[in-house]
Amino acid sequence: MEQRGVSPSEFVNGERLWDRHFKLAAHGARQDGGVDRPALSAEESAARAELIGWGKSIGLTAYTDEAANLFLRLEGQEADAAPVLSGSHIDSQPTGGKFDGVFGVLAALEAVEAIVAMGAKPRRPIEVVAWMNEEGSRFSPGMAGSEAYTGVKPIEALLAVRDADGVTAGEAVAQVLARDVNVPVRPFGRPAAAFIEAHIEQGPVLEKEGIPVGIVTGIQGTRRYRVQVTGEAAHAGTANRSERKDALMAAVRMIAALDREAMHPDDLKVTVGMLTVTPNAPSVVPAQVMFSIDVRHPNNKEVDRIDSFIRLVVEAEKGPCEVALSQIAHAPSLMFNANIRILLHEKAREAGIAATDIYSAAGHDARQLHYFCPTGMIFVPCKDGISHNPNEWAESEHLLMGTQILADALWHLANE
Amino acid sequence: MEQRGVSPSEFVNGERLWDRHFKLAAHGARQDGGVDRPALSAEESAARAELIGWGKSIGLTAYTDEAANLFLRLEGQEADAAPVLSGSHIDSQPTGGKFDGVFGVLAALEAVEAIVAMGAKPRRPIEVVAWMNEEGSRFSPGMAGSEAYTGVKPIEALLAVRDADGVTAGEAVAQVLARDVNVPVRPFGRPAAAFIEAHIEQGPVLEKEGIPVGIVTGIQGTRRYRVQVTGEAAHAGTANRSERKDALMAAVRMIAALDREAMHPDDLKVTVGMLTVTPNAPSVVPAQVMFSIDVRHPNNKEVDRIDSFIRLVVEAEKGPCEVALSQIAHAPSLMFNANIRILLHEKAREAGIAATDIYSAAGHDARQLHYFCPTGMIFVPCKDGISHNPNEWAESEHLLMGTQILADALWHLANE
Repeated sequence: MEQRGVSPSEFVNGERLWDRHFKLAAHGARQDGGVDRPALSAEESAARAELIGWGKSIGLTAYTDEAANLFLRLEGQEADAAPVLSGSHIDSQPTGGKFDGVFGVLAALEAVEAIVAMGAKPRRPIEVVAWMNEEGSRFSPGMAGSEAYTGVKPIEALLAVRDADGVTAGEAVAQVLARDVNVPVRPFGRPAAAFIEAHIEQGPVLEKEGIPVGIVTGIQGTRRYRVQVTGEAAHAGTANRSERKDALMAAVRMIAALDREAMHPDDLKVTVGMLTVTPNAPSVVPAQVMFSIDVRHPNNKEVDRIDSFIRLVVEAEKGPCEVALSQIAHAPSLMFNANIRILLHEKAREAGIAATDIYSAAGHDARQLHYFCPTGMIFVPCKDGISHNPNEWAESEHLLMGTQILADALWHLANE
Repeated sequence: MEQRGVSPSEFVNGERLWDRHFKLAAHGARQDGGVDRPALSAEESAARAELIGWGKSIGLTAYTDEAANLFLRLEGQEADAAPVLSGSHIDSQPTGGKFDGVFGVLAALEAVEAIVAMGAKPRRPIEVVAWMNEEGSRFSPGMAGSEAYTGVKPIEALLAVRDADGVTAGEAVAQVLARDVNVPVRPFGRPAAAFIEAHIEQGPVLEKEGIPVGIVTGIQGTRRYRVQVTGEAAHAGTANRSERKDALMAAVRMIAALDREAMHPDDLKVTVGMLTVTPNAPSVVPAQVMFSIDVRHPNNKEVDRIDSFIRLVVEAEKGPCEVALSQIAHAPSLMFNANIRILLHEKAREAGIAATDIYSAAGHDARQLHYFCPTGMIFVPCKDGISHNPNEWAESEHLLMGTQILADALWHLANE
């Protein structure tokens, strides 16, 4: 099927790819140059409309589903063949940047645009996908769209989650679908031939080693918890220490103990990213504290060790308060499909692009797809390893090289 | 001047006094039975309108000032004599109750109503007062209205403070004054002959000792701080511990150290009541944390010792983050005017009501007035010592007894 001597990577347009990152960054732009584009927000809908327009201009048909995942489909010679999927997400953290997620969606779109420009039609359809709510900042936990698509969780459970304002994901999805009135809603349960996700590394390895592309071997394990500490509101000036049920002091003792326990090894990542105090007034002893714990390490045993410690420490340090611990996510470490990894290395070598194996410290939608179809990931370097930050940055030439490898790999998979 | 054998306390109506607490509690009522009535809110304005109406029905004239303090004035035989003031505040904590502040305002109104019912006119005017923003929950710090009235702080500084939504106290005052269009605005700098504030104890002493009224000897010292910790946002899955500038972990280390240092004596009250995390997302290493510290003890040396510790510990525990500490309030311990304290004991004895000396662990507007004119306070018990809590409760008979003493003391002071 492949045209001898011609490959899609030759048609990838690095300038167009780069420009589109800045066009999408206008939707939810922060004053500090970063991006705040919550899942299922009006800003995300605007970015979505722009993607649909770009797809339409090269003949791609937009589809969605009950999770508001977005698919831009290039038809194949065999319309009924399972499609090859590629993409990532366009929601961001509240203090997000221009590349996390967006690169994966734009790289897939550029790869398909290159295939269209080549003038050939693949055997299988290829679908560019933007998964709903990868970040999990507005509706926690994240990766909801890919979980719904792959059947990891029932859609009803995902749509029942509420944001900080009490809006359910279901209500927010309904708003997005109402805006996209001309985009057909497809049922879940569709097979996929393969999935490849391109992404910035979100770590310092590629930049340090001076290698433009990483072929991802696997994803490190994660556990995420929510801890609710309940004490009793009291007057800061009158309640003696022995009479207090101070929810914040109990939470602080728990977190401080966790901080000490998680000091080694250095790559054991324990993060308390969210903490809210009720009623949160300077002269009132806190009645309630809710905080998140996020634990990650490539070795599942290390993650399990901290899991046991968390269960002990919240009881040991609760003092006169009550505590409720819930594990809201548990994703063990995984290794990606070997054939996909080999294919990506081959395409890098054929295109003359240096590539190395790399481990993913961050979670991605590719985790869910890994259990569903042959899956792989391509990383490109990001400046100083920084992400989830307005200063997130990647180099245009690295985005181009990652996309060239993606284009050739998708073309190969779609013709298999 | 006093009519022989007749005293205002005989005309105090305990049932009316009790009912009015529940009528005011309807403005800003919480579903859990508590009250959420922020300073200068629409709910507070509604409570204010009700007070003005009650005053009008017995011939009191309402006045306000540029701080939106509310005065309900009973004219005296000598219109130009400095008035005797009595009252407290009607704003509440977010999780407040029905008695804190409100009792002092309603007791003063009831005392004046008793004097009116007695059919005699005092030599000096008597003014019932509701001081603006005592709690400091919406606009921090509190006691702003009494500070403006007594000239402790310039009005401009008080009105420039912003709430969490960015609204200045000045804008909020302007809204209140616009609603009270028929209430004249008086200039600051008016003298006062005396001030008495009735209040629930907000501590367990009177209830434990079974004594219905406390004559307050003084107020314990307070220092309040704001700590801003600045780190750097990073991805929870990729940033190794040694690379992180985690603002929350730094704040937790500071607070945990403070908690240990403040363990003794038991009546040293160190409270971190407010703590906010930015961006506050489960998978982002916190970039910024702001927290409050409130330190109180009857002995100024104990408060000073913790002040020194706070200054050391925020630097010692900041790790790779930056920290900015600002002291936003410093109120040393004080003792109230001896003549007022003796008068209140006399009036309790004359009315046959058991009373005892008691120290105030909480701050009150009476602190500011203490530096301005002879000032005293009357406490009544509150259930389990609980306040700043929807479960705050006082007994009707105790409110009555406190108000009877207040009425006789005001009558005495207004005829001196």
